[in-house]
Parts: sequence; structure tokens; C-alpha cells
Amino acid sequence: MSTTVSPLAPKSYPDMPDIEGVTFATAGAGIKYSGRTDVLLASLSEGTAVAGVFTKSKCSSAPVDWCKGILSEGHARALLVNSGNANAFTGKKGKAAVARSAEIVSSAMSCPENEIYLASTGVIGEPLPAEKFAGVADDLVAAQGQASWLDAAKAIMTTDTYPKLATATVELDGETVTINGIAKGAGMIAPDMATMLSFVFTDAPIAPGVLQTILGQNTETSFNAITVDSDTSTSDTVLFFATGAAEKRGVEAVSEIDDPRTDVIRAALADVMTDLAHQIVKDGEGARKFVQISVEGAESDQSAKRIALSIANSPLVKTAVAGEDANWGRVVMAVGKAGEPADRDRLAIWFGDVRVAMEGERDPGYSEEAASAVMKEETIPIRVDLGIGTGEAIVWTCDLTKQYVEINGDYRS
Amino acid sequence: MSTTVSPLAPKSYPDMPDIEGVTFATAGAGIKYSGRTDVLLASLSEGTAVAGVFTKSKCSSAPVDWCKGILSEGHARALLVNSGNANAFTGKKGKAAVARSAEIVSSAMSCPENEIYLASTGVIGEPLPAEKFAGVADDLVAAQGQASWLDAAKAIMTTDTYPKLATATVELDGETVTINGIAKGAGMIAPDMATMLSFVFTDAPIAPGVLQTILGQNTETSFNAITVDSDTSTSDTVLFFATGAAEKRGVEAVSEIDDPRTDVIRAALADVMTDLAHQIVKDGEGARKFVQISVEGAESDQSAKRIALSIANSPLVKTAVAGEDANWGRVVMAVGKAGEPADRDRLAIWFGDVRVAMEGERDPGYSEEAASAVMKEETIPIRVDLGIGTGEAIVWTCDLTKQYVEINGDYRS
Repeated sequence: MSTTVSPLAPKSYPDMPDIEGVTFATAGAGIKYSGRTDVLLASLSEGTAVAGVFTKSKCSSAPVDWCKGILSEGHARALLVNSGNANAFTGKKGKAAVARSAEIVSSAMSCPENEIYLASTGVIGEPLPAEKFAGVADDLVAAQGQASWLDAAKAIMTTDTYPKLATATVELDGETVTINGIAKGAGMIAPDMATMLSFVFTDAPIAPGVLQTILGQNTETSFNAITVDSDTSTSDTVLFFATGAAEKRGVEAVSEIDDPRTDVIRAALADVMTDLAHQIVKDGEGARKFVQISVEGAESDQSAKRIALSIANSPLVKTAVAGEDANWGRVVMAVGKAGEPADRDRLAIWFGDVRVAMEGERDPGYSEEAASAVMKEETIPIRVDLGIGTGEAIVWTCDLTKQYVEINGDYRS
Repeated sequence: MSTTVSPLAPKSYPDMPDIEGVTFATAGAGIKYSGRTDVLLASLSEGTAVAGVFTKSKCSSAPVDWCKGILSEGHARALLVNSGNANAFTGKKGKAAVARSAEIVSSAMSCPENEIYLASTGVIGEPLPAEKFAGVADDLVAAQGQASWLDAAKAIMTTDTYPKLATATVELDGETVTINGIAKGAGMIAPDMATMLSFVFTDAPIAPGVLQTILGQNTETSFNAITVDSDTSTSDTVLFFATGAAEKRGVEAVSEIDDPRTDVIRAALADVMTDLAHQIVKDGEGARKFVQISVEGAESDQSAKRIALSIANSPLVKTAVAGEDANWGRVVMAVGKAGEPADRDRLAIWFGDVRVAMEGERDPGYSEEAASAVMKEETIPIRVDLGIGTGEAIVWTCDLTKQYVEINGDYRS
């Protein structure tokens, strides 16, 4: 955990309404850090539906394997998250550690093990001392409700410089339902996904199948559309819990994907997830600039996204942004290397509202001064029009600074 | 051009034998730099065969398009290279600039335009003032033979901190023939290929078809097996010229790929190209460590290479190397994110001779001290055994340091 907060951090935290059926407690179990909380236990009311999206890494962590294994049950009673140790690449010991963790929570909360979700973030390859959870489990159960959303977000931080929270409300059947989310992540952030954990909760009554569908759809344009360093973690986890408590207030259960209320929830969920995704990028290790890359006119949306990510992951583009250099030649390079259909002579590029290139060469009206002014801003919009189709995509990244190298050259010590 | 030479630079330059049929002259045309040479003209004897491999970028530069257009002719009389301006993304002006360049050289050397090869390296998007070549062309022709191989290598440098040269000799039909190569490149270096130019010359008599085949084969394991920053240039060019002068000494022409002498030449060419490729990585912008990544036990050679490049391009692996941190967890992450077949529980990883991980977890005999000692060396061998097949590949990269960010955050100014 850094002592210097990212300059891109939000100026204030949102007011997070309570969500009926969700309570938190946190503890300092001394997994790796001292003098801070490193364990979060969320208690979820009976019947809470759950959906999840996980890392595509071939070397996924033990808790990711655990969650995937129980997800088909569709229900959750508890979520245990620790920071400081990822329990990844820990072999049989890792598998034993998740089993032991579930056993400890199951016993303390008197709920089935296959309704206990686990997530870990931190160092890879160190055995996770699950027994440390036993020492705090009863306290965590007794203290349920004492930790706020902010406390919860703080307990799951690793190299994050600030806790990440977002909230939205929507009307369903005349009643207000809430969607709250927390997230962590600052490095090893790349599509499919990042070392990022995000937990989203709602009191809306939504069936697991619907929950899974809308979570998957929204992940594509939020957590899978951000990149800090192109590195994908072994531990990425997004879980979405619906306690259904609003049903008591007369909100009918959403159990079909073509229920018109699904779109309402999906849109609000998208707001929360995109907000959290942006907060992760803005806490990108060493980040000083937030970069939005929009690609349009591509052969397909997928092709547009690949090109956008090629730009977003280019160290030369990212260092140019860090240096406030309107070096659009590097954007051309990144378009070219993406390997996607492109026609050099139709390409146009904008930094903010300043068109810097068109029809395969520098814009005749190019003004270095105008382009440089855009680069001095905190948020840098880069727009590319390929001029060959209707595919489009937006991704977000940050600049690459000396501080990134400093943070990551000295992470374990 | 940097004033501080990379600590990984060779301690001395090789003695480069003359190659009959090849002469050089250099000039300072003031394309962008002042107080240094920035144009190289190589004169090649009549009948010189040529082969080329070029960037796969969809936004290739005007000189790349020019060379591709004349390559089928198979013969070369001249090579004109400038540094300081890449003539890339320069649209119609760029096309006009290469045509004008060829015209200038053709007139000064009295040779056909379609035997004049052009290469440019430097800033993207600025029109190339080809007329500046006219001012030095006659001098360059008159001064042929006055520039050494070292002078030639120096004239094509951009952010390089040292000139790159390599040489090899082989016996063909009882006669010694020579292969000499020069190269430039330090950033925007990634497979398929780099902002790298390399020009290789031999006096062996080799038909264009054979020349093209062995150049293509050797590129895969040399220039296409290195990465500094995963960024692929618009301008990458490797040209191989065979003057055939050794024919006069009794060496019979190599005109078939199954001529047993082809293997002899291919092996020597591989030595020269791999040497030059290593020199480029060792001059990687800000590099302090040379990293060799060997992947074995993969499903196929191609899969091994993808995994090796995933490791080599990971900013987290590269910053760990910069920090002399034996952070093998990041190697696991990079294997996992490659998306290639892998079995976490069969994976083994070595830093140098120290096995740090096996069977999906930390090696039981792991010694932080021994692993850290490897990381303090200048050359860091990282070996990964996937344990699922017989595919293998080796790639080379360098570490990612604050100096990389510094150099690239302030390149244009």
C-alpha cells in the first residue's frame, strides 16, 4: 500500500446506501501486512443469488478454482477476501488452504461450504496461512455490520493508493433498489482481466442465470476494457451478489433475461462497473494521466477493440503521454502493429478535439501548440478513425511513468 | 543519439574484412541531426543479388513499400539509408520522396532506379526532405570506399548508444567467403520486427531465390526473436546483398536451395544475424540486463515462442529483472496470460541454474539467496519447462528501467 495517493484519485468517496442482506466486518490477520486490515468477511442473507467472471489465465489461483467450482450452485452466504497473499501457484497447499478457509467460515457462520466465496490478492507463490483466518473468524462473525463499505474497500487493497467504491440506484416496480460495488487493483491490470477484485451487491431480486448474463455482458465494456500494463493476473475475480431483499418491498423477482427490467438493471450495473474500472486505471501504478482510447470505423467491434488495446498497451504511446508529447506517430505505429485490417491512407487521429493526422499523413492544419495543450490535461482522449467500416470500441489506460518502474522493481522487498 | 553508452555494449568492435563489390560513403545531410553523419550510400557491384524481409505493420513506411515493390527484380546496385526521419505516414509526400531519392541516386550512379534500395529511420509523420540527398549525392559517389564498416554503422544510428557490427567467414569450394552485417535499433523493438534496420553483405555468389529463403529462415530465430518493448516499427527492414565476387576466385554459384553449401552459408548468416539481434537488445533503451528466455516442453515450437514472448513483453517481469528481484510469480502470470496450452501443475521455472518452481508450486529446495545471486548478473537466463510436449523456443529481451521511460517520454524534443 503506497503512502502517496494517485493524483487521479476521486476527490471524495460516494455515499454508499445500505443494502439489505449485506453486512461486513474486517480484521487484521497479519497475512503479510501489519498495522492494517487484511481480511474482509461479507455476510449475505439466505437465498442470495451470485454470478461470477474470472481470469482467463491458464495458471489461475486456488480461490479462483474454488469459486468456479461452486458457481453452478448459484447461491452465496459469505464472501471471504484477504489481501497480502494471492494463494496462486501454491499447488496442493493452495488447494488445502481454500478448503480450510471454507471450513473455518462454514463453521463460524453455520452455512454450507459451497455457498462461501473466496478471493485472495497479493504475492504469488507463497503458501497462504489459512489458519490465520481461524484466529479471527469468530470475531468477524460477531462484528458483522460494524464495517462500512469504505472499510470493506480498504481491507482488500494491495498496491492501491485509494479504496474504490461506486453506487447506483434504479426504480423497479416503483421501489428503489441499489447496486453498490467495491474494487481493488492497480497493477497487473489487463483485459481478461487484471489483478483486480470487484464485488458488486444489490438488493434487487434477480435469478442467478440473469445475473450471470448481465455481469458477463457488462464485464466486456468495463473491466475487460481497461489496461495498465497488459499483464493479466492469476486471481481476477468479479462477483455480483443479489440478496433479493427488495422482494419484501414488493419488487417482483427478475427471472428471465427478456424481462424489460433487466435492461434497467444492466444499465445501472454498467455505470457501477465502468466507474470502478476507471478508478482502477486512475490508480494504475505510477499513473499521472487517464487515457481514453476510442477507435471507430474498424472492420468490426472486435477488431476496433484489438486496435484500441494495441494503442493502450504500447509502452511508446504510454511514455509519450507521460512526457506530454503529442507523438501521434506512435499511435500510427500501434495501429499498424495490431495486425487488424487497416488502410494507412484512410487513417485519421485526434488528440482531444485536435485532428493531428488524416488520409495517411499529418493533418494539413496540424498545430503542435494545440495538440500539446491537450497533452497537458489530466484526461487525454485519443480517437482513431480507420475509415473502413463501422466497428467501434473504447478502452481506458494510464500513462507509463518512472514511478511504475520504481513500484514494480521493488514490490516484494 | 545518446551520450551514455549502454553498459551491455560490446567491449570492442569486430575487425570487419573487406567484401569485394561493396563500398560505402557517408555524409551529414542535416536531415534532423547536426554535427554527425546521417546518410549512408552503399555501392554494390553489377549483378549483386538481393533478398529482403520487412515489417508486418499495416502502416509500413514509404521506403518499405518502395523496397517491396522492386524486390522481385532480385538485383541491387545501391543502398541509400538515412537516419533522423522515417518517411513513415507521410502519404503522397512520402511516396514522392522515395521516388525523388531513387532518381537522385540513379542519376549520380548511372544505374537503374529499380536496383536502388532505400531505408529511413527516425521520426514518423514528418515529410522527408529528399532534396537534401541531391546536395550530397555526387560527393557520396566520389567518396565511395572512404567510409569503413564502422562509419556505415554509425551513420544509421538513431537512439542507439553504439554502432552494431558482426562478421563471419566460411569456406566454399576451398575459398574463404565473408558475411558482414550492420544494424541499428534500440527502441520500438518487437518481433515482426523492430525499428531496426540491418544490412548484411557477402561476396558469395548466391541466387536471389536461395538468398531470400535463408534470410527468411534466419530472421525467425534472430530479429524476430527479440523484443525491447513489444512495439513494432513501420520501417523494419533487413536486406541481404550477395555481390558474387567470390565467383571470380573459383566459387561456383549457389543457385539451388538443396545445394549442400546452402547450409554452410545459412549457419554463418545465422551467427551474424543473431549477434546483431543480441546487440540491438543490449542497446534496448535504458537496458541494464540482457535476458534470455527459453521455453521448452510446450505443445509446439510456435506455442513455445508465444509463451516466451508473453514473458519477454511483460512489464512486470521486466521491472522485476530491473530490480534484481527473483519474482518468479510474475513468470507464472506471464505463462498464464499467454493463452497457450499449459498445465499449472507441471510447470517448472529456473533462474539461471536455480530451479525456483516445480509441479505447480515453489520448489521445495528454493533458496532466495541463490535466486537473487542470479539476478545480480548482467545476463539473466530464465527457463520454463511446461512439461506437456516437445515444443521449444528462445527469445531475448532486456529489463524495463526508469531510463526507458525517460528516453521515450522526451524523444521528439
